[in-house]
Amino acid sequence: KRTVACSSAPERGVGGIYPPIATPFTPTEEVDYEKLEENVQKYAKIPFRGLVVQGSNGEFPYLTVEERVEVVRHVRRALPKDKLVMAGSGCESTQATVRMSESMAQAGADAVLVVTPCFYRGRMDSRALIRHYTQVADSSPVPVVLYSVPANTGLELPVEAVVALSQHPNIVGLKDSGGDITRMALIAHKTRGSGLQLLAGSAGFLLAAYAVGAVGGVCALANVLGPQLCQLEQLCLSGSWEEARELQGRLIEPNAAVTRKFGVAALKQAMGWFGYHGGECRSPLRPLSEAEAKLLRKDFTSSGWL
Amino acid sequence: KRTVACSSAPERGVGGIYPPIATPFTPTEEVDYEKLEENVQKYAKIPFRGLVVQGSNGEFPYLTVEERVEVVRHVRRALPKDKLVMAGSGCESTQATVRMSESMAQAGADAVLVVTPCFYRGRMDSRALIRHYTQVADSSPVPVVLYSVPANTGLELPVEAVVALSQHPNIVGLKDSGGDITRMALIAHKTRGSGLQLLAGSAGFLLAAYAVGAVGGVCALANVLGPQLCQLEQLCLSGSWEEARELQGRLIEPNAAVTRKFGVAALKQAMGWFGYHGGECRSPLRPLSEAEAKLLRKDFTSSGWL
Amino acid sequence: KRTVACSSAPERGVGGIYPPIATPFTPTEEVDYEKLEENVQKYAKIPFRGLVVQGSNGEFPYLTVEERVEVVRHVRRALPKDKLVMAGSGCESTQATVRMSESMAQAGADAVLVVTPCFYRGRMDSRALIRHYTQVADSSPVPVVLYSVPANTGLELPVEAVVALSQHPNIVGLKDSGGDITRMALIAHKTRGSGLQLLAGSAGFLLAAYAVGAVGGVCALANVLGPQLCQLEQLCLSGSWEEARELQGRLIEPNAAVTRKFGVAALKQAMGWFGYHGGECRSPLRPLSEAEAKLLRKDFTSSGWL
Amino acid sequence: KRTVACSSAPERGVGGIYPPIATPFTPTEEVDYEKLEENVQKYAKIPFRGLVVQGSNGEFPYLTVEERVEVVRHVRRALPKDKLVMAGSGCESTQATVRMSESMAQAGADAVLVVTPCFYRGRMDSRALIRHYTQVADSSPVPVVLYSVPANTGLELPVEAVVALSQHPNIVGLKDSGGDITRMALIAHKTRGSGLQLLAGSAGFLLAAYAVGAVGGVCALANVLGPQLCQLEQLCLSGSWEEARELQGRLIEPNAAVTRKFGVAALKQAMGWFGYHGGECRSPLRPLSEAEAKLLRKDFTSSGWL
Repeated sequence: KRTVACSSAPERGVGGIYPPIATPFTPTEEVDYEKLEENVQKYAKIPFRGLVVQGSNGEFPYLTVEERVEVVRHVRRALPKDKLVMAGSGCESTQATVRMSESMAQAGADAVLVVTPCFYRGRMDSRALIRHYTQVADSSPVPVVLYSVPANTGLELPVEAVVALSQHPNIVGLKDSGGDITRMALIAHKTRGSGLQLLAGSAGFLLAAYAVGAVGGVCALANVLGPQLCQLEQLCLSGSWEEARELQGRLIEPNAAVTRKFGVAALKQAMGWFGYHGGECRSPLRPLSEAEAKLLRKDFTSSGWL
Repeated sequence: KRTVACSSAPERGVGGIYPPIATPFTPTEEVDYEKLEENVQKYAKIPFRGLVVQGSNGEFPYLTVEERVEVVRHVRRALPKDKLVMAGSGCESTQATVRMSESMAQAGADAVLVVTPCFYRGRMDSRALIRHYTQVADSSPVPVVLYSVPANTGLELPVEAVVALSQHPNIVGLKDSGGDITRMALIAHKTRGSGLQLLAGSAGFLLAAYAVGAVGGVCALANVLGPQLCQLEQLCLSGSWEEARELQGRLIEPNAAVTRKFGVAALKQAMGWFGYHGGECRSPLRPLSEAEAKLLRKDFTSSGWL
Repeated sequence: KRTVACSSAPERGVGGIYPPIATPFTPTEEVDYEKLEENVQKYAKIPFRGLVVQGSNGEFPYLTVEERVEVVRHVRRALPKDKLVMAGSGCESTQATVRMSESMAQAGADAVLVVTPCFYRGRMDSRALIRHYTQVADSSPVPVVLYSVPANTGLELPVEAVVALSQHPNIVGLKDSGGDITRMALIAHKTRGSGLQLLAGSAGFLLAAYAVGAVGGVCALANVLGPQLCQLEQLCLSGSWEEARELQGRLIEPNAAVTRKFGVAALKQAMGWFGYHGGECRSPLRPLSEAEAKLLRKDFTSSGWL
Repeated sequence: KRTVACSSAPERGVGGIYPPIATPFTPTEEVDYEKLEENVQKYAKIPFRGLVVQGSNGEFPYLTVEERVEVVRHVRRALPKDKLVMAGSGCESTQATVRMSESMAQAGADAVLVVTPCFYRGRMDSRALIRHYTQVADSSPVPVVLYSVPANTGLELPVEAVVALSQHPNIVGLKDSGGDITRMALIAHKTRGSGLQLLAGSAGFLLAAYAVGAVGGVCALANVLGPQLCQLEQLCLSGSWEEARELQGRLIEPNAAVTRKFGVAALKQAMGWFGYHGGECRSPLRPLSEAEAKLLRKDFTSSGWL
């Protein structure tokens, strides 16, 4: 099994904490590359394993093909070499995903994160998905991380597909954002031979994911509470479960607020409170209403983070 | 309220039957423009109101930006002027949808069909969707038809948003594929003043849609049983409900087979049986298995269509 | 095929409009038989086909076995003989449903309405449900009407089960509350030989149901707008679709308000406004909040009914 | 806060492993008390904390009021005093639940397990559920354990309701069968002051539940693999997470098979393989087909349990 070629820590594979970074836009909705790079420079000081560029929080469905690649290029330039860039390259068609994966590797991505195609979800069974991911992994110049995010796609990558794909030498991991811990435990169990690396797709179940065998997390909340999530990682890895539980408990409501409750706009608003540039959302995503912003803030203050 | 500018029947607006045509691909998954044009020429002989290009059955999420426009251009060229081309121009971002609508109008579309953006469906409330569609309609050179297809998008365009948008002078219709007849009746009732034209998004509830006030249908099944759907339209319009019921009854199972049961691949397979070119699907969509094809055929034979 | 034995109109079977009557409770949550009978006497003056006792609006899951039978007995006594009493006798187990159906027939029910058992919904496939309903119908002294109400049960009686059961001589109808008009049209089509009588389970799609072949409706809204629903029935039966559409349109929002939006408590509150006794709900159902009651009232006033 | 009065371990409250026992029926579908008692005597030799009688696996919705109490009485008689009897006393109405809780306490239950009422799920908000459970807990002679099982009820007991109810002196725990580990972690965190005892409602996420703060589990699978689940409990309590993970991994598929995949009938069939009496199901539940039984067996053999 290949691991990610990376000067600093090739043996670790992709384990660790990643923020799936936001894409700041200017008031006219253009990508704000300057603010983006400033965020990246700040993130570089946190013990993250790397950054995920164009996960769901990056508003990737709103970027053109060219912008998607360009954002990756800028992030790679701004980020120290010892940090990984994992770039979201999933498109609806297999051929577009193949091309996007190549472009992103050329732009400097160390690995690609490939979301399940989902528009025809009724036909995206194991057979179709195994074929799709196999073609993508066969041609990708960099390792592939599978990505299952049913809240956005209405589709869960079936366990049997994950198990089959874990045999592919260029598929190294799975980011699972569904939060079904029984499923994650089963996947960890059934892929223990192939060494598939399991990443929790949300901060809400990070502790539980480590408990069942995950090796890291891609957490929206890490965009604002990065050090705390790296601390939670350390507590889990060192077996300090009591302390881990206390910290995990305080992270759940702020995490829910910036994900399923209020989404990307909330994440961007909270970024401002923690010294990052959130910037505007691209339409049709709208900024939070004042009432929502107040509720959002309460979810951070009541947990003691603001 | 604007109606579609069209030499033959400007007063009718967009009412009538449309097949949302399939996009045939070659064995190497390129768009097969030749077969596409042959299909269009055959469809021209059926009393359709026009063709929908790049509805969900056109595999539009699998086409590049350039292909989407090029397909519209070819269809417009091959289709007599008295038939409408309604082109799907929906993208996830507002700005991409605006641009795509312009491109499609330039390519000859008489109207654009704009699906709800859906990736961040949790935030696509009435406020966001009204703003999105208003911006698109403000700038579109041709009339806009709203498009709600919850089976694919996981999102229903809220009734209050439809009612508000029906006031826009450049929004002329709604294609509703959800099949919630109570909702369709309510929309027809609440927009009777603004003259929004309601199109049933599936053959399964075409009769019922006419009964509650629809003026047409965009029906996948029309790709194979076009004359029959035009006949059903006539029976409804002339109040021959008894006969309409008998015909409607025989269309439901074949329709389900080429839509939610087996999807686009089934539609393409059935097209071959009825003298059209289905062609390949683009990956990750797969052709039907033999067992599925057999079940599909049975849904047509048991209703007496094959 | 048996039809319901009923002096006035044996040939009509069960077609027509029914309110699924509410069960008024006293402030101490006992059944208020006096108020119940007064309601029944008022309903007797409306051209209903009969009353449904212990549909979902009757709070039947909150009644004891004895109360369920006693309520039927009181309704039968208070209602003129030419009106049908259709009594909900569904329980989770087959043997309890068999016994309840017998008790209700003895208490004077003309037909029983049997909801799908649903607690183990994952195992309630066609095979299990056909067996259940067959045993119930075999032993029931009065005709059986099937009852599918997915909003409450999380389960839809499969079409193939309905078709199979329509062959049973003691199964005369189906109350379908799901509102899937394609499904209703298909059922009407596939049971046209056996003469299964289809009843719309809600006022929201009553017109559409008649259009596809239904012969009546069991409508919560008939508890308050009974004459209007009987008028809608007449407009549909006489083919006055234009007028029917106008009336149907005005009934949808009030209907939604007393069903899925606010439920039984709203129905009971509205009953007071129209001269009936709603009475209390039994716990854990709660009366509407003031804000809800205001919204409810608005749904009636804005449609011109109050 | 009260804990369960119990001679052997009053200080532990309700923590530990429980099988939610099945109710064996005779071929004529009567409760088979003899077989029931034999099962109980065998379970008494496993280090369970006690037995849950009339959880969802006990087919309680199929029992009459009298049978529900009688089954509890028999179990209590056959079970040594140092084991707890936790009896399911939930009914749809509050008054029926109050009465049933009293009857079960009189029949010897040490605690009652109260499922959320669900028929009118649209109205079962926090306000209604808090009131329901408060009335039940106020009058119950024995401690109350809340029970949330969305797969059967279509309803999740809201976190805010759980937190509010955890303050009640007679509410000691929550059995959560939903499997949403983020929710369980949040509940554990927010009730750490009140000492609410959290029980995992399924073997599939038992390890993860312990990791986030649960103190036990009510697991259908414990009816057949009881010693293994008690061993998993010990591994979790002693912090042997590596071994726990290995064991947990092997339990997930057999657990899924006897719960959401094939249900109670599968559990009963598997009980026979492990030396217990499963007995018949009561109608409309049906025994497994031969094909299902084969798949079920494979889920046990492939994990090395048969």
